[in-house]
Amino acid sequence: MISGAEMKLNIDPILVAALREDMPAGDVTTESIMRGPQAGQADLICKQDGVIAGLPVFCRVFQLLDDSAAFATDLEDGQAVVKGQLIGVLSGDIRSILSGERTALNFLQRLSGIASMTASMVAELAGSQTKLLDTRKTTPNLRALEKYAVLMGGGHNHRINLSDGVLIKDNHIAAAGGIKQAVALARRHAPFVRKIEVEVENLEMTVEALAAGADIIMLDNMSDELIAEAVRMINSAAEIECSGNMNRGRLRKLADLRVDYISMGALTHSAPSLDFSLKNLRQA
Amino acid sequence: MISGAEMKLNIDPILVAALREDMPAGDVTTESIMRGPQAGQADLICKQDGVIAGLPVFCRVFQLLDDSAAFATDLEDGQAVVKGQLIGVLSGDIRSILSGERTALNFLQRLSGIASMTASMVAELAGSQTKLLDTRKTTPNLRALEKYAVLMGGGHNHRINLSDGVLIKDNHIAAAGGIKQAVALARRHAPFVRKIEVEVENLEMTVEALAAGADIIMLDNMSDELIAEAVRMINSAAEIECSGNMNRGRLRKLADLRVDYISMGALTHSAPSLDFSLKNLRQA
Amino acid sequence: MISGAEMKLNIDPILVAALREDMPAGDVTTESIMRGPQAGQADLICKQDGVIAGLPVFCRVFQLLDDSAAFATDLEDGQAVVKGQLIGVLSGDIRSILSGERTALNFLQRLSGIASMTASMVAELAGSQTKLLDTRKTTPNLRALEKYAVLMGGGHNHRINLSDGVLIKDNHIAAAGGIKQAVALARRHAPFVRKIEVEVENLEMTVEALAAGADIIMLDNMSDELIAEAVRMINSAAEIECSGNMNRGRLRKLADLRVDYISMGALTHSAPSLDFSLKNLRQA
Amino acid sequence: MISGAEMKLNIDPILVAALREDMPAGDVTTESIMRGPQAGQADLICKQDGVIAGLPVFCRVFQLLDDSAAFATDLEDGQAVVKGQLIGVLSGDIRSILSGERTALNFLQRLSGIASMTASMVAELAGSQTKLLDTRKTTPNLRALEKYAVLMGGGHNHRINLSDGVLIKDNHIAAAGGIKQAVALARRHAPFVRKIEVEVENLEMTVEALAAGADIIMLDNMSDELIAEAVRMINSAAEIECSGNMNRGRLRKLADLRVDYISMGALTHSAPSLDFSLKNLRQA
Amino acid sequence: MISGAEMKLNIDPILVAALREDMPAGDVTTESIMRGPQAGQADLICKQDGVIAGLPVFCRVFQLLDDSAAFATDLEDGQAVVKGQLIGVLSGDIRSILSGERTALNFLQRLSGIASMTASMVAELAGSQTKLLDTRKTTPNLRALEKYAVLMGGGHNHRINLSDGVLIKDNHIAAAGGIKQAVALARRHAPFVRKIEVEVENLEMTVEALAAGADIIMLDNMSDELIAEAVRMINSAAEIECSGNMNRGRLRKLADLRVDYISMGALTHSAPSLDFSLKNLRQA
Amino acid sequence: MISGAEMKLNIDPILVAALREDMPAGDVTTESIMRGPQAGQADLICKQDGVIAGLPVFCRVFQLLDDSAAFATDLEDGQAVVKGQLIGVLSGDIRSILSGERTALNFLQRLSGIASMTASMVAELAGSQTKLLDTRKTTPNLRALEKYAVLMGGGHNHRINLSDGVLIKDNHIAAAGGIKQAVALARRHAPFVRKIEVEVENLEMTVEALAAGADIIMLDNMSDELIAEAVRMINSAAEIECSGNMNRGRLRKLADLRVDYISMGALTHSAPSLDFSLKNLRQA
Repeated sequence: MISGAEMKLNIDPILVAALREDMPAGDVTTESIMRGPQAGQADLICKQDGVIAGLPVFCRVFQLLDDSAAFATDLEDGQAVVKGQLIGVLSGDIRSILSGERTALNFLQRLSGIASMTASMVAELAGSQTKLLDTRKTTPNLRALEKYAVLMGGGHNHRINLSDGVLIKDNHIAAAGGIKQAVALARRHAPFVRKIEVEVENLEMTVEALAAGADIIMLDNMSDELIAEAVRMINSAAEIECSGNMNRGRLRKLADLRVDYISMGALTHSAPSLDFSLKNLRQA
Repeated sequence: MISGAEMKLNIDPILVAALREDMPAGDVTTESIMRGPQAGQADLICKQDGVIAGLPVFCRVFQLLDDSAAFATDLEDGQAVVKGQLIGVLSGDIRSILSGERTALNFLQRLSGIASMTASMVAELAGSQTKLLDTRKTTPNLRALEKYAVLMGGGHNHRINLSDGVLIKDNHIAAAGGIKQAVALARRHAPFVRKIEVEVENLEMTVEALAAGADIIMLDNMSDELIAEAVRMINSAAEIECSGNMNRGRLRKLADLRVDYISMGALTHSAPSLDFSLKNLRQA
Repeated sequence: MISGAEMKLNIDPILVAALREDMPAGDVTTESIMRGPQAGQADLICKQDGVIAGLPVFCRVFQLLDDSAAFATDLEDGQAVVKGQLIGVLSGDIRSILSGERTALNFLQRLSGIASMTASMVAELAGSQTKLLDTRKTTPNLRALEKYAVLMGGGHNHRINLSDGVLIKDNHIAAAGGIKQAVALARRHAPFVRKIEVEVENLEMTVEALAAGADIIMLDNMSDELIAEAVRMINSAAEIECSGNMNRGRLRKLADLRVDYISMGALTHSAPSLDFSLKNLRQA
Repeated sequence: MISGAEMKLNIDPILVAALREDMPAGDVTTESIMRGPQAGQADLICKQDGVIAGLPVFCRVFQLLDDSAAFATDLEDGQAVVKGQLIGVLSGDIRSILSGERTALNFLQRLSGIASMTASMVAELAGSQTKLLDTRKTTPNLRALEKYAVLMGGGHNHRINLSDGVLIKDNHIAAAGGIKQAVALARRHAPFVRKIEVEVENLEMTVEALAAGADIIMLDNMSDELIAEAVRMINSAAEIECSGNMNRGRLRKLADLRVDYISMGALTHSAPSLDFSLKNLRQA
Repeated sequence: MISGAEMKLNIDPILVAALREDMPAGDVTTESIMRGPQAGQADLICKQDGVIAGLPVFCRVFQLLDDSAAFATDLEDGQAVVKGQLIGVLSGDIRSILSGERTALNFLQRLSGIASMTASMVAELAGSQTKLLDTRKTTPNLRALEKYAVLMGGGHNHRINLSDGVLIKDNHIAAAGGIKQAVALARRHAPFVRKIEVEVENLEMTVEALAAGADIIMLDNMSDELIAEAVRMINSAAEIECSGNMNRGRLRKLADLRVDYISMGALTHSAPSLDFSLKNLRQA
Repeated sequence: MISGAEMKLNIDPILVAALREDMPAGDVTTESIMRGPQAGQADLICKQDGVIAGLPVFCRVFQLLDDSAAFATDLEDGQAVVKGQLIGVLSGDIRSILSGERTALNFLQRLSGIASMTASMVAELAGSQTKLLDTRKTTPNLRALEKYAVLMGGGHNHRINLSDGVLIKDNHIAAAGGIKQAVALARRHAPFVRKIEVEVENLEMTVEALAAGADIIMLDNMSDELIAEAVRMINSAAEIECSGNMNRGRLRKLADLRVDYISMGALTHSAPSLDFSLKNLRQA
């Protein structure tokens, strides 16, 4: 579900850079021992239960090294996988399989780790209208892929970067001289296709943000009780996002309060890897 | 402890790319609300106990946006920090502080997370000669920084990439027709300044690797009992690394067996972020 | 009003590339004749009435060649200039002034041309609430600067690129099976901070877009009469943008109909250059 | 008529950069609504009379997104086109057609605009030996394409950049201490395959340039009467270029004076776009 | 014997840059005279006796310009060639052959020059166990290719760069306060897969290096007599490299002393080109 | 005599790439042993008689690593140097001196080698009007610097690349159907500021080239006798360049025949390095 255009324009450069990072001067072991190409195959095996994300990237890494590389699988990103499952079969020059293995797995494991944590959190919200969002707390230079992994886990994306979403925080409010002035400045200067989101920390600010006409109000680091009160005050006049100190335990409670969105930085900054392994390398 | 040369040659491009990732077309909120520069300061606060790593990178992010940016601190990478601690004071144009904040924290939190997990694992080895190693299971395109963070946590670096270390695995052995042949090919073709490491999975292979003259033998996915036996067999004729399924509980046991090195991929692929926050932004 | 961060991250690479385009192997004339540096000054003179945009870029071009370059002026981007006016005084190594002159003027003339055409169109809308918008019909690889020039001329920016704004056109509608379905898909899959804009060509589509809950409705290539009718139907339930076949003559009429936005591709694709000249080069 | 080598080496990077400029994070509308590839076709229609330039670039933009993209046409760059004419049929994945449309048209419209203005100016010179030249007043980072468009319109190229042609201007003359000295320095230091051109503003300088052995004399900002006199004085001892304040009305007069070249910056800095449209997108 | 992965990751960018260096704005002669593609062939002829290296690079240069280019040959890098020998036949678009010829030959001639000088030096060591090494005295930005050429000539590679080998020189020793301390610091801080090499200039330092446990001792700028003495002292407790003022005449003598390695910078910094020519271009 | 603009635009990227080539992951020796910065100095000593070229590049390499680096010297590129001479004193952080030393010397030694060979060849032409030219047989991606070194040795530059000079060779002639047609095509399609050079191999072709109006005739691989005859025939109607199989012995003879130019590829493809050394590193 990564489009071909996105792969060529924005993902390929990341993959090539990662391959160069791991082979600034070739793969000294493989090249010393295998002096020419040899067609082969290997199995991609899942070693932990979770949700897979990054299969097209896993395959593309090898294709960038070797025109003959291919990956046969019936799975798609976003599907559940279990420990021991055969995910697919990789074929190509054995040397490229050996040289690309670590890089390809590093991508797959990280993205699947994010998708898996996201899916487990989204499960807490089942049956509600509340959506789980990522944040900008992503790994530097991997944001496109990590936000894609959140989608594959059933989450939704918040703004992608500082250029494409307006989010007015306390320091902006202070600089503008108040929420009203800050919202007015954003409406005047930002491209008109942007919604205006305001981050508030208490009920007074919530009232001001509503009065200023914010499209979205982010309730930041507020208690469940205060959030409940804010939801009543806003009364559907703006979309509501909850943020800060989110954990599994609070998700259901907030969903029951009917907030529109909950954002959770841990999805991208603290998800552990999901383990995969490339096994049974053999001549083809 | 990142040298100035390394920062300019290899780290700056990573930081600039990360800033462009977050601002492909400016910071629409900050630029809408703050229409000109204004000198200011903010406090970097630690929000979790751990070991800090990435302070020079944190500071450099802002300097790449703003020639006037500076960061005053008495701390150095590798030191312990505690929740609530004031780490230092950042000064510069408030707009650059706002625009660079997330990117700078994303680096600092990830690197400190790695250093913290490393330090907590290294503590298990206290008093022994056994060293804790990282692996190549790093975040794509951040390896230099993540391996640096491992050092800051008291760990040691394994090879940096496929070009600078010889590690003969099962597939190489199969391709060469045996451990003896594989080691001989590596000695013939790899630059002579490389040590030769062989990965073995049982005692038979250990014997062969010893006979082949391996400089380092990696005992991969072996039980504590087998490792104990292998250590006796090797008897200091080669360095010994243990790898695979490592967890906190096994570290002390393996150290008591006097293995030279234990490598642990989780240090870089599954360390959760250490939380920091930039607070109290104020005019200077 | 280009922020320092934006200049360093996104504009400098454009300027450096333009200088390399003009000097792939040095400035053969200047280097043949002037064998060493010599401090000098030159006057930037306006040769046509208009609105200036690009002064920081003009200056930066020379600074990228020569650390000693500076440009002294009392003007700011967005101000009116007249034929014969002294815009400012450039100082630096005469060789850099000669080598950078054409590149710097090429930027300044193009951006000022856009600002001037924009300002003259905006003048037609004086006293109304209707805002003039640019489009994505910009010069390839100069969009950031050209959209900035539109702002300097008093216009406003539409979305910056395909990633940061949702605009549903006829082909999207056909693919989705109707406006309602298309809007629903966009709401489901696009980041929630995006407004949803729908392009319609007649009143039936306008009704559907309204019913689908579009945030913005673009009336494309419709007559003034149809637009008047659409404005009545929409009745402030969505923002209204008019687009297609816009020319100076229609602007006032559409403003009187109280449309919110008029977009005009010619601002960036067909604005003639505004002429400037660097004169009176002299030793300093 | 852009060679395959030139396309791969120098044009592809421009096209890829332009696509990334428009899709830093994908095409949010198309990807939200069309969740997978679908083969389709669309018609490229001309909407204004003129001369077309940029067809290979138009096609290449889509091919860089989509290996299956192709463009069928009987036309070649440099041919006249008329309003309403079907230029050709584009085929490929509909998503790539939608995502690449604006970028491809931005190139085609700009280059065709330049070719059209050039052709209309060249028509004024019909039957004479005088050739119409472009200048270095091109759009930054698009010079190769814009100079190509001038050729397609029947014009000729002046020097491409500061490295590949010697043009001695007033400031060079002042620095050298006279035309004679400047020409001598250029002959000594510039690669010997360069012709030496001197820019003169009056008859005295013309005499000096002739005496100094200039290969080409540029008569800059001189009246038709002075040019006539200069042509007589030069008497074929050097090639003659007229420059400055050129407009359609003067072209014929200068051609009748038998100057060799007339250069006109407006060809590239002020040519309005020629309008094209991609219509009738349909499943294939 | 350059792997496909190495070609794509690390060599292609060098080749593309070299082609752009020679064609920043096309091949003006070829494009003026040959207005369209034409299939053709040409013969690659050797004009001097030597050892060939760089055939895959020679071919790849043309393929990067022209998808139809191919090179048919029975030779492989590392084989001896003689004056007048037909090396192979190049086929493709004649324009690409003409445009790429100089760049392709520049690579082939330089690499073959290095391979030839290396082979002639290696011949002096025939029958001994002593290996000939290159150094880091390579042409900037061509190290990967030049070290490959040394291998093709029968030599061996020393460390590739400052990152992948520890070599402690006099200044490091001074900074550390002695050889013992320097070796200890290197063991503590460098990745453990690195061997430690120490450069010594006399017998005292040799003793210290041995005592410090150096893996390799480089005898730098020492006389044959001192080297003989050092070899006796070291007595196989460390590998021995001789360096400095190496020339053909000394090689045999040092081999007879049974040093392990002799390094010679001239292999890469002073090898004259081996001459090849592309002849008999003809239509295919 | 490299201009500041040329250094920043075109040379710095070469130097940075070379430093990254040598330090893809830092300088493991220096960083292990010297754990912080320390100010120091070192002497640059010449170890062979010759002509120096590349001093600004030598210095710049260190400055790109270390803002405090400086190089004090009274010498300029193009001056004669002798064995044992102190060229200048480098100061800066000792770690940067150690890390940059090899890269900086690699540039200096190569460029000085070219300047030295050039100077020694130019000496053969003393008193004549004949100029010595380089060719395009340069090291890939170092052409700008190598052509600069030829100038510093007293030589002159031929065309820089395929884009900036027309040189019609046998294959072009064959494709065009004769010299006359080839010259006519080049005049029609190449930018008019280019001179037209034709390569001829015998007297018949010389006659044709003259008749076709070639600006420069290159006598390629002709004997001294044929060259003498050609010079008489051309009789100053075109400039004359001799090329092919040039060596020291022929230079004087050809100069006496009054040819204008002699080109010699060996200047750049086979000049041995000139040896320099950085000595006496000391704390400052």
